[in-house]
Amino acid sequence: MTMLEHATAARGPVQPTDGARSTLDPLPLNAVRLRPAGLLGRWQDRNATETLPHCVDQLEADGALANLRRTPGDGTPHRGMWFSDSDVYKTMEAIAWRLATGDGDNGLRETFDALTGLLESAQEADGYLDSFYQHNKPDHARWRELAGSHELYCAGHLIQAAVAANHAGIGARLLPLARRFADLIVDKFGPQGDNAVCGHPEIETALVELFRVTGYRPYLETARCFIDRRGHGLLPTGAFGAGYFQDHLPVREATEATGHAVRQVYLLAGVVDVAVETGDETLLAAAERLWESLFESKTYITGAHGSRHRDEAIGDPYELPPDRAYAETCAAIGSFQWNWRLLLATGKHRYADEMERVLYNGIAVATALDGRHFFYSNPLHLRTGHDGSGEDAPSQRLSWYSCACCPPNLARLVGSLQAYVATSDASGLQIHLYGSSDIEDDHGRSVEIETRYPWDADVSMTVTSRSAQPWTLALRVPGWCDAFTVRVDGQFMEAAAVDGYVRLTRAWSGERVDLHLAMPARLVAAHPRVDAVRGCVALARGPLVYSVEHADLRGDVVLEDVVLDTGVPLNVVDNGEESVIPVALSAVGRIVKPASSALYPSYEQAASGSADTPITLTAVPYFLWGNRTPGPMRVWIPVAAR
Amino acid sequence: MTMLEHATAARGPVQPTDGARSTLDPLPLNAVRLRPAGLLGRWQDRNATETLPHCVDQLEADGALANLRRTPGDGTPHRGMWFSDSDVYKTMEAIAWRLATGDGDNGLRETFDALTGLLESAQEADGYLDSFYQHNKPDHARWRELAGSHELYCAGHLIQAAVAANHAGIGARLLPLARRFADLIVDKFGPQGDNAVCGHPEIETALVELFRVTGYRPYLETARCFIDRRGHGLLPTGAFGAGYFQDHLPVREATEATGHAVRQVYLLAGVVDVAVETGDETLLAAAERLWESLFESKTYITGAHGSRHRDEAIGDPYELPPDRAYAETCAAIGSFQWNWRLLLATGKHRYADEMERVLYNGIAVATALDGRHFFYSNPLHLRTGHDGSGEDAPSQRLSWYSCACCPPNLARLVGSLQAYVATSDASGLQIHLYGSSDIEDDHGRSVEIETRYPWDADVSMTVTSRSAQPWTLALRVPGWCDAFTVRVDGQFMEAAAVDGYVRLTRAWSGERVDLHLAMPARLVAAHPRVDAVRGCVALARGPLVYSVEHADLRGDVVLEDVVLDTGVPLNVVDNGEESVIPVALSAVGRIVKPASSALYPSYEQAASGSADTPITLTAVPYFLWGNRTPGPMRVWIPVAAR
Repeated sequence: MTMLEHATAARGPVQPTDGARSTLDPLPLNAVRLRPAGLLGRWQDRNATETLPHCVDQLEADGALANLRRTPGDGTPHRGMWFSDSDVYKTMEAIAWRLATGDGDNGLRETFDALTGLLESAQEADGYLDSFYQHNKPDHARWRELAGSHELYCAGHLIQAAVAANHAGIGARLLPLARRFADLIVDKFGPQGDNAVCGHPEIETALVELFRVTGYRPYLETARCFIDRRGHGLLPTGAFGAGYFQDHLPVREATEATGHAVRQVYLLAGVVDVAVETGDETLLAAAERLWESLFESKTYITGAHGSRHRDEAIGDPYELPPDRAYAETCAAIGSFQWNWRLLLATGKHRYADEMERVLYNGIAVATALDGRHFFYSNPLHLRTGHDGSGEDAPSQRLSWYSCACCPPNLARLVGSLQAYVATSDASGLQIHLYGSSDIEDDHGRSVEIETRYPWDADVSMTVTSRSAQPWTLALRVPGWCDAFTVRVDGQFMEAAAVDGYVRLTRAWSGERVDLHLAMPARLVAAHPRVDAVRGCVALARGPLVYSVEHADLRGDVVLEDVVLDTGVPLNVVDNGEESVIPVALSAVGRIVKPASSALYPSYEQAASGSADTPITLTAVPYFLWGNRTPGPMRVWIPVAAR
Repeated sequence: MTMLEHATAARGPVQPTDGARSTLDPLPLNAVRLRPAGLLGRWQDRNATETLPHCVDQLEADGALANLRRTPGDGTPHRGMWFSDSDVYKTMEAIAWRLATGDGDNGLRETFDALTGLLESAQEADGYLDSFYQHNKPDHARWRELAGSHELYCAGHLIQAAVAANHAGIGARLLPLARRFADLIVDKFGPQGDNAVCGHPEIETALVELFRVTGYRPYLETARCFIDRRGHGLLPTGAFGAGYFQDHLPVREATEATGHAVRQVYLLAGVVDVAVETGDETLLAAAERLWESLFESKTYITGAHGSRHRDEAIGDPYELPPDRAYAETCAAIGSFQWNWRLLLATGKHRYADEMERVLYNGIAVATALDGRHFFYSNPLHLRTGHDGSGEDAPSQRLSWYSCACCPPNLARLVGSLQAYVATSDASGLQIHLYGSSDIEDDHGRSVEIETRYPWDADVSMTVTSRSAQPWTLALRVPGWCDAFTVRVDGQFMEAAAVDGYVRLTRAWSGERVDLHLAMPARLVAAHPRVDAVRGCVALARGPLVYSVEHADLRGDVVLEDVVLDTGVPLNVVDNGEESVIPVALSAVGRIVKPASSALYPSYEQAASGSADTPITLTAVPYFLWGNRTPGPMRVWIPVAAR
């Protein structure tokens, strides 16, 4: 495939070059269509019709666009965060993905072109573009406060928007604009440039993506410089220490995922991009090693990351408090994107498993049913009596945030969601995420998928293409699944999952493939070192984590007094697709009146029994909590004493 | 008692006027001498010989003194926090308490006078004094940034130092200096002044204390203004919300202790001061109501407060994570001082109980055995693998902090510790805190106390005064104590604790009184709503909370894998007074190899047993942890499955 083709085809967000170290290939963006009847398709539709217009409105309302409209000396104050330009870029990227599908314009193209025009007006002659630094710090501050300035972070999002626009065929003006900025960055910070890095990674992956659509190697080289310079103390140690910026150790030497969660996962996405494009195996190994650190002891059951509000940090091993989970939406998105890169590079199913977990839980929970309210932090326990007055830990989803990074980040991810469901390689097609969809790769292999997944686990596939040559349809068997069956045209097949995939090889010609994944409701424990949820279990089914909400309790019941009887089997309650809660779980529990009202009673007092009230507990998918009467919620439920 | 006498006698830190609403009276400062052989006396000695000189050295080393030496236009940069003046004032207050005892000068008087001279040079003609605002923001910023400026907070500490100096008889220059500043504050912010408040309470209690030594009522009136203005949105809502400043509701209306923990308890100390001096019962009721909110659901077992690092906040009810406890030393000190005020006002034993708990745990833990290293935050669990690189959560006590509020706060509290052990009223003497000491009130009643408390619970008292009139010796029976005996001259007495005190009334003439408090090692649970320590117990004995340290485990044992067998009685191990750990507890536990290495195994996997290794556990007083080989520690120990 030539660079020219890259630049004109509608490709997805991550597009390794032919020379890249790669195991699986992404499909072209429009090789997959998510059917609106499926959950993934619904999310994508809602994103287009609700979230995206909402983001565009909010950019105007919160001043992000006004910031870019300022002219030198006009005296207009900057509004909101100093990196508000990035919200504009992420929204533009989301628009580009939407327009790339060819589904419904609704004025988005006009909006996109107007925004491009705004950026053209705002950009300096030398390519520099940052509304805050141009107008609030015009005198020599440019590039001088990299630890906190977010200039390169913003530039990264501009570049990603331009790359998406290019894929969508609407980047004729934006791609050159982004390149002018990127060229300036190469001059300033490339191999011959300043020995400096940005406090917030993002530029790394953006420059690699720009290299991929342009073939211009200095972009890649500059990304590599940024990665190799990090960890040498080039950033001043701020209040949160060097680890906050992942500047405590070079990534090649680091053994613990640490610091600001979004920065860590964004950095590691860029690390994989550089590793695969430069064939740097030690860099790829570093990304895999830090993945193990993160996923072995520092990941929430929802797939989210970030135990701490203070510095938005990952936290210590096994820390993971449910009530004070930060679990930032952007970190979940970054993890999804990083895992996708690792999946492409290595083909290992564990990366697809984590994509599924975080998508259906840590990411999906961030958006309200209406598509217009969002969580930034995503607690796993909203405590009775919680003071939700702070934006960092509200009791309900908010329509926007003073730091508005998450909503447009959701918009750009969900807008390109079809890019992440399947891959191809020389052997055939791999299906990683199940949703009702139509898939056709660029080798003419096509599959139609019909499923209620994740509400049930029957995935019906029809291979609609015909081929004289045998090829392999690889179906992921999720890590949560203990048993499955496969039928081809009704015939049960002897099929085992090897390395997480069941592989069916034949000269396909219209067969129907039925995958059934056993999806019982299950109880999940946490490693005993996770002190914060000792004596508790979580309820789960398939990829979904469940939660108990106060909305399903009698008004006078304190959620924290409810315990679960693990001796009684869980029931699956199918309320139908159109219900707010399509599938709930039902369990038996008790309301325990504490034996002592003292905060610290003697152990004997606390252990002595008291009259418990039996209760039927309803658990709802975690990602759907907070869409009814607001109130307390918890994922981890204390286990009743037997 | 006249104002003049107040101004010349060596009085303690809180000295209500004769007209104040009061139940118990503080003793004169030198009415109590803590014997060096007792633990309280040791602490006070160490404070004088180690902590205080260390603080003086650090004020020089960290620039706090240099900040005050600056002159207009000399171009010297400010070093450290913008409120570093307060560290100087707190150290001066500590010196004053030391000099008030008449024990050993060691150059402290000279230091004190030199510091006074420094302040005289630094003070503006109109009385204003704030080295940061005078030199870094000379143009009109004064008083204009009250939410964050700490100008009134610093002024409060200056005033408290001057009051202490006055009590110690060394305030001839400092008291007038402080009054000049206070008069300026009265002019600016008094009843006829600006409708404004400081973001950090402290000035309130200071102005009341200054009123008490001067009799000048506008100080009291201004303090009342500051309290009544708070909660009306006069402070801009910052990143942490109005609750952070306790500006969300007037204190008379607030029902939940909330926000920044130090600010909350400092405010409430001032609330009690104003309430008792103005006879404002609704204000006193507010302080008691917020006490209940705080101590019913938001207090650590160590008596400390602050569940959150992010905004140093108290947190939600029952939040109280042990690993991420902020539990700031200054909040513990502020709580001790607030409880003392409530004890004087009401005589209720619960306030003395909380003073004891926080003194022996939340406060004592902050200082290393060497008296020269300190904790700022005081975790109840230092996790294996903890990243201690941040000053907010170091793995060991540090010699100083960039925000150095805590060490000199410890110095001033411990320097005046004798003031808090006993009170008097018309009926006689009340002993609240037991320590080897000599007590003589200003009615000629005297008691000598000899005890190893808290290492054992035999308190031997000799009433050395003789009186024809009967009076009552009231002895606090701590809340942790289930059984006690009292002997007078060897004879067991029928004695019951009424409202937390056993009261012995007679015409005393040299009797020996032996109080024995049953002090078994005990297991303590937490209210089941404290999810963070579910399934765990704490070990305690008398007023002391215990902890398990890695230093007492085999090197390869992960602390988080250790569980306690609650079926086996605890042993008390007396290592002798000179040991680093005078009294340890010994328990039986197990090292549990987790059944699954997965972060989230199925419940069955996690519940399935595995081979446990029996282990003898040693628990050490929490306040002494971290004085041996550094390593993980935990207060709350998981209970072994039976």
